[in-house]
Amino acid sequence: MLSDIEISRQSPRRPIGEVAQSLGLTSQEYHTLGDAKAKVQLNVLPRLANKPSGKFIVVTAINPTPYGEGKTVTSIGLTQALHALNKKVCVCLRQPSMGPVFGVKGGAAGGGYAQVVPMEELNLHLTGDIHAVSSAHNLAAAALDARLHHETRLGAEEFQRQSGLSPLHIDPERLLWPRVTDHNDRALRQIEVGLGRNNGPQHSASFAITAASELMAVLALSCDLKDMRQRIGRLLLAYDKSGAPITAEMLGVAGAMTAVMRQAIEPTLMQTLNGAPCLIHAGPFANIAHGNSSIIADEVALKLADYVVTEGGFGSDMGFEKFCNIKVRASGHQPDCAVLVVTLKALKSHAEVHQQDINAADLTALQQGFANLAWHLANIRRYGVPVVVAINRFPQDCEQELAWLQQAAITAGASDCVVSEAFAKGAAGATALAEAVLTALQQPAQFHYLYDPDAGLEQSLATLTELGYGAAGFSLSAKAQQQLQEIKQLGAGSLPVCMAKTPMSISHDAKLKGVPRGFTVPINELKLNAGAGFVTALAGNVMTMPGLGLNPGYLHIDVDDDGNICGL
Amino acid sequence: MLSDIEISRQSPRRPIGEVAQSLGLTSQEYHTLGDAKAKVQLNVLPRLANKPSGKFIVVTAINPTPYGEGKTVTSIGLTQALHALNKKVCVCLRQPSMGPVFGVKGGAAGGGYAQVVPMEELNLHLTGDIHAVSSAHNLAAAALDARLHHETRLGAEEFQRQSGLSPLHIDPERLLWPRVTDHNDRALRQIEVGLGRNNGPQHSASFAITAASELMAVLALSCDLKDMRQRIGRLLLAYDKSGAPITAEMLGVAGAMTAVMRQAIEPTLMQTLNGAPCLIHAGPFANIAHGNSSIIADEVALKLADYVVTEGGFGSDMGFEKFCNIKVRASGHQPDCAVLVVTLKALKSHAEVHQQDINAADLTALQQGFANLAWHLANIRRYGVPVVVAINRFPQDCEQELAWLQQAAITAGASDCVVSEAFAKGAAGATALAEAVLTALQQPAQFHYLYDPDAGLEQSLATLTELGYGAAGFSLSAKAQQQLQEIKQLGAGSLPVCMAKTPMSISHDAKLKGVPRGFTVPINELKLNAGAGFVTALAGNVMTMPGLGLNPGYLHIDVDDDGNICGL
Repeated sequence: MLSDIEISRQSPRRPIGEVAQSLGLTSQEYHTLGDAKAKVQLNVLPRLANKPSGKFIVVTAINPTPYGEGKTVTSIGLTQALHALNKKVCVCLRQPSMGPVFGVKGGAAGGGYAQVVPMEELNLHLTGDIHAVSSAHNLAAAALDARLHHETRLGAEEFQRQSGLSPLHIDPERLLWPRVTDHNDRALRQIEVGLGRNNGPQHSASFAITAASELMAVLALSCDLKDMRQRIGRLLLAYDKSGAPITAEMLGVAGAMTAVMRQAIEPTLMQTLNGAPCLIHAGPFANIAHGNSSIIADEVALKLADYVVTEGGFGSDMGFEKFCNIKVRASGHQPDCAVLVVTLKALKSHAEVHQQDINAADLTALQQGFANLAWHLANIRRYGVPVVVAINRFPQDCEQELAWLQQAAITAGASDCVVSEAFAKGAAGATALAEAVLTALQQPAQFHYLYDPDAGLEQSLATLTELGYGAAGFSLSAKAQQQLQEIKQLGAGSLPVCMAKTPMSISHDAKLKGVPRGFTVPINELKLNAGAGFVTALAGNVMTMPGLGLNPGYLHIDVDDDGNICGL
Repeated sequence: MLSDIEISRQSPRRPIGEVAQSLGLTSQEYHTLGDAKAKVQLNVLPRLANKPSGKFIVVTAINPTPYGEGKTVTSIGLTQALHALNKKVCVCLRQPSMGPVFGVKGGAAGGGYAQVVPMEELNLHLTGDIHAVSSAHNLAAAALDARLHHETRLGAEEFQRQSGLSPLHIDPERLLWPRVTDHNDRALRQIEVGLGRNNGPQHSASFAITAASELMAVLALSCDLKDMRQRIGRLLLAYDKSGAPITAEMLGVAGAMTAVMRQAIEPTLMQTLNGAPCLIHAGPFANIAHGNSSIIADEVALKLADYVVTEGGFGSDMGFEKFCNIKVRASGHQPDCAVLVVTLKALKSHAEVHQQDINAADLTALQQGFANLAWHLANIRRYGVPVVVAINRFPQDCEQELAWLQQAAITAGASDCVVSEAFAKGAAGATALAEAVLTALQQPAQFHYLYDPDAGLEQSLATLTELGYGAAGFSLSAKAQQQLQEIKQLGAGSLPVCMAKTPMSISHDAKLKGVPRGFTVPINELKLNAGAGFVTALAGNVMTMPGLGLNPGYLHIDVDDDGNICGL
């Protein structure tokens, strides 16, 4: 089989303008960037406002394992199959971060014969949206430090006299806004800045990867430009010496940040290997943020296509939960069907089968690991959404195990369970999945939220941990209790919760495989994301800056004499 | 008069494809990015290789003053005037950094009725080239720190066993590669990284603004993709514990860096207010780097147009000198004519007239300040290049002074001296300038370099300081002497010199106005830029990271309800 990049490069592509027109965009509603990418213009939104929406299909998974379950491959494969069945379909995906591309993962454009093309465009700069987020984010950090510098250097009174601005009295001990970069850069996790003469005040600081920027979540959750401008204005950057919040609006930097993101708010149109439209937009983390692509891209897709496929990060306890409780609340677009991706390997991994035995037939282990799948099935159905289970097939998979799994999933409540071979066969490999989804969509979903944020943060946390995870409950550290009081005082006690926990277990503890019970989720910290509009609850250490490993991906990447990028 | 952004927005624009075709690009040789920008494809280079070159006009200035002399306005105005005279002309400019846009300067797209449009595109992301340079640069920094981390953590032997890579034995005391960001961020000038558990080793580090990245100079000086790949491979990142150099090639990151810059190597086509083609490409500093736009853009422009206008940073002692001694050596494209920009205000400033009196008529001060202009005239003529002096006129300028200056400049050796009103009147305001340039071009230039790098660095420094600045000579600090020996040992002793000194004086000392004599240029440091292909000689402190001031530009920038960026 050819490599991903060879398949991507050899595939014929439709001119992107043709893809745009086929989706229903008029020539005033997009502009092309070369022949492979287009930016959708926001003037399309008012025209679509009163159109009915297509069906919304959310792809999710069991708890991820180191083997990779193939959620993106399945999302793209399903889209390709629906397109091949002459359905009007569009897939909405997050833009990959360059950090993992040069780190380990090698890319996030799908794989095999289920890809968004050209993959080297998707995996590198694309249309610069992530750069725009980094730049706007770091402008706020530079502005905050500069203001602190000048007010400290001159004193409040003299600062006011010379600048004509009211002093902000920033508390140097309570700076909340890190800097970001779209690289895996371990050395920047914890740093000290403002050293040397006239560069201070010195203070500790940190860099996160751009996907972890609250601005990335803002981009994904904004309904239009005005909404984004207002959310940016609300970003909480620091506290002043009296404990009052300092926002981007108060610092006077929110307008410039919005200007930097003026083009990033426009979704990027690309295509799948068989020419189905794909909207790429935003890429927030699925732990400290909500892990879904943008509301604006969904809106455009849902009003123009009859079927829209999207995916949430990690398993249904994370990306799907946040899709429902955070994104649907902001967008109003409820899911009509879920696709739950699973592999035989992943289920055996949940039964603690070791790596050397993971490809061997082992029905007992499969049956034991099935509990994790059954939990995710029930979890999704708790939201009133029908579920089709997609088994992402690997060449060595045992037919008998596949057959058992299909039957077991249906018995456990799946609308259907089908084998997907999208990686190896593209659209043809996902036809059965597409047909199962079309059948499932005939029963209308009865969507409802898991919790009501108006009941307050503690109640939301209780419902999320107990009903959402099957925990005994949650505990708040002293720090988190203090933060809870502050958040309430700021009038933000009714925002939805965004749980930052390990994705490897339903619980907060990566070591608890299968379906853990009786655990208590320890919340160490609560962080108000006033711009994004949620409160992140940190259960354990969540790494917001990955590091490069021993054999990083960049070693293999180069440009050949014809100017082609190779090794992705 | 309207503001710059109003003029930019109200001006009718040609579709960029039409501009590309009028320049002589075939539809296979560019791709459009919306209707205002296009990327020139590198496949154009072989087709043009044997075509004759057009005339090359370099715009330079006297030593800059805080008032702004209007070099970019003059470059664009001259281009507009030549275009209006039906000459086939193209202007090649550097891409502005966002740091100054949000800091003080507000933009670098020209101004008034001499602009590259749309100015908000030029001043913000444009086509992402600066982001690509930042990203490729920081990938190398992350890779270097990660390698140091893993080799330190495991020890050389175990590192080799686990990774299969040969250890580099990086000396943590001799890391040479900073990180960069395209913002004015004072707090990042001097930092400590690698703090906290498992993030080390801890060491001091710094951020520069992206324009100061050696990669930016590499982008500007590369003749094609292969050349850029090789230059990136030669970048010197650190020394090992035995004192041997560690390059990007040795770290295995040069290919990935090139992949990140794959699109950045393509010049961006825009247009002036009256529809003349403009190639925007690269933006290296004019102090620690050579301060000129790219060789690739020049090559495309010179082979397609009959007249190419470009500008070098700062005064003729800096950008023009480096244009001749660094860029021409790499490109082979010699200048045919120089335009020397001056204002009455600037000359009076060189006569030490204070700000409150700067607009008043004062022929005595003008005559005294004229010495600076006369020096730059002679400096340019030393290279065998004819000079047209352009007086960038301000409304309050005194007719008598203008007349005196015109006569004095011609007497001092200018081919002509004309008043330019490009800012207020666009092409019509620069017709006299265009005609003077066309006349000057009728006498063929007798270009020659100032010094021969093959004579060795010390001789180059002697000639540059004595002949180039009129200094008594130069001195090397103990550190610089040590560095000189290292550079020679690395076989780089015959590279051209890139002087990093104040632009405000012909000398190294900003306080020495007019035409200083008898000074000795103190070289504190020599820095090998093995990728860019020059040795930077630091005469005094050169700031590579600006800071935001008391009333930064970002305060005024916003996005209106129609999505228009305002306040630039």
